[in-house]
Amino acid sequence: MNKSTKVNAAILIIGNEILSGRTQDTNTSTIALWLNSIGVKVQEVRVIPDIEDIIVHTVNKLRKSNNYVFTTGGIGPTHDDITAQSISKAFSLKYEIHKEAFKILEAYYKPDEFNEGRQKMVWMPKNANLILNPTSGAPGFSVENVFCLPGVPSILKSMIGALKNEIVGGKPILSHTISLKTVESEIASSLTEIQKNNKDVEIGSYPFFQAGKLGVSIVMRSEDKSKIDFCSSKILELVSKKKIEIVNR
Amino acid sequence: MNKSTKVNAAILIIGNEILSGRTQDTNTSTIALWLNSIGVKVQEVRVIPDIEDIIVHTVNKLRKSNNYVFTTGGIGPTHDDITAQSISKAFSLKYEIHKEAFKILEAYYKPDEFNEGRQKMVWMPKNANLILNPTSGAPGFSVENVFCLPGVPSILKSMIGALKNEIVGGKPILSHTISLKTVESEIASSLTEIQKNNKDVEIGSYPFFQAGKLGVSIVMRSEDKSKIDFCSSKILELVSKKKIEIVNR
Repeated sequence: MNKSTKVNAAILIIGNEILSGRTQDTNTSTIALWLNSIGVKVQEVRVIPDIEDIIVHTVNKLRKSNNYVFTTGGIGPTHDDITAQSISKAFSLKYEIHKEAFKILEAYYKPDEFNEGRQKMVWMPKNANLILNPTSGAPGFSVENVFCLPGVPSILKSMIGALKNEIVGGKPILSHTISLKTVESEIASSLTEIQKNNKDVEIGSYPFFQAGKLGVSIVMRSEDKSKIDFCSSKILELVSKKKIEIVNR
Repeated sequence: MNKSTKVNAAILIIGNEILSGRTQDTNTSTIALWLNSIGVKVQEVRVIPDIEDIIVHTVNKLRKSNNYVFTTGGIGPTHDDITAQSISKAFSLKYEIHKEAFKILEAYYKPDEFNEGRQKMVWMPKNANLILNPTSGAPGFSVENVFCLPGVPSILKSMIGALKNEIVGGKPILSHTISLKTVESEIASSLTEIQKNNKDVEIGSYPFFQAGKLGVSIVMRSEDKSKIDFCSSKILELVSKKKIEIVNR
């Protein structure tokens, strides 16, 4: 793939526990930061329930409009873990025992520990590629451009490193942040001007509270460092003109 | 609305900062927990970028398939805050100065503080209903079944209380959690049986790490307390039979 091509991805969080508010998703941020670093831009995130029809439909939609899809959740041993069977359906592949995964878990567990629940985790779409799991044995898997990862954040984190060679990114998306002791409205119109004149840089403005004081982080994102530097200089000019204090954040 | 009718909602997180991984979304959990408590089930969450066409398209899709849609983000004073104009387009309404919002902000700020940036925050879809903001003045708004809230978590939290009378929920969704010192595979097949025989209770199984030890939380969710109680008793039977320790969490 040409390195200047835009490469995009969708993240699909599968899990009733996120929709109920009981669990705070942190995997989106983990995956998105990693993808950015290898030049893949996340276009969209969806959170959906553990319902087969919805998983099948959503995966089929997202895999056509994105270079890559990353799913999290639903690949454990219990009844509510239905990602593997749903992905099989989405790709019209047989849902069957994956021999390599079976061997991995057979070696990982003591013979009397490799019970029915654990054996469920080796059922996958036919010919799926395994994603190795250095933390807890049971692998994830990918089919074409869809990569299925677990929901437990620490296990997911340990697995994404192994995907490096599977994902072909574009130019890494660079970012630079300038944080100011001011309020958004103070700089809004000048910032609009700077954005208008620098369309290749995505300029975001994010208010924050720090030690009870209001501040604004201005985040510039682009594939081109020189364009970010130019925007930065324009913002620093503005800051100096308005006598706004720069803060560390 | 009949109290036994299922009422559902979608949450739409608008913001490049979430997609880039820079900011961890916490608003989903805040809104979902609150909605659950008033009998509204979140069916779907989407995170999308600050791009008008995408916001318009997504809002129009979600507002037809859900009783309620809650958006967060994009209602501040800067150039990347485009939610109000996008919602106007989605409903084919004029994007104009909201007189009541203007009065609120005129009274909130000192005359010389009510600058161009802040005045942007009173532009809304024609005849939008205001959602009052006790924290920082600038109101959110709703049009039909779409409620637009800010992205800053502390401000959002202070505003949802005011929506109580606007949202008509079904029966509150009750939940009960039993946390166990075990691994999922140990209880998976018994849990599958319990779920099969109790289809009106949604049973989720969520592994966790606590003080370096593995555990599983079993979460039962239903509108009917007696059905949750029955499932609980079945799980406690299983736990006692297998001599599994119950833990506080």
